[in-house]
Amino acid sequence: EAVPRSAIELRCQCISTHSKIIHPKLILNVNLTPSGPHCKNVEVIATLRNGREVCLEPTAPWVKLIIKAILDKANTKPKTAS
Amino acid sequence: EAVPRSAIELRCQCISTHSKIIHPKLILNVNLTPSGPHCKNVEVIATLRNGREVCLEPTAPWVKLIIKAILDKANTKPKTAS
Repeated sequence: EAVPRSAIELRCQCISTHSKIIHPKLILNVNLTPSGPHCKNVEVIATLRNGREVCLEPTAPWVKLIIKAILDKANTKPKTAS
Repeated sequence: EAVPRSAIELRCQCISTHSKIIHPKLILNVNLTPSGPHCKNVEVIATLRNGREVCLEPTAPWVKLIIKAILDKANTKPKTAS
């Protein structure tokens, strides 16, 4: 079973964060890593449809909105297995 | 460059969600996948310190609180590279 890269990395993964807003449709998934001994920053990494991984700024309002939108969509969806 | 497993999976990754509350200290990272053609459910997968991956219920209040807590911590941390 593969362990996600972020689970085995021992230091920060983001050296900088993407400055421009990314359209939610382009985002495949978002990974949130709390700060910890490996890195004192909270890291938010989005995987895009084109396969690229970009670091997002966790304090940016649009980043929080995208995360909220993903979760809110769960409330409005039927919960049957597909 | 490795593409995260969730980026290449073509179907739902969660068959069920973990029913009990998980202490935030045990969580290494949280991955959010919006619903899409591959899966009609929003999927929230936490990687734990013991290496296990567990599916969380995106509509559960404690799950939303954990995600909010991770992001909120970014606001209170100094933003220098480590």
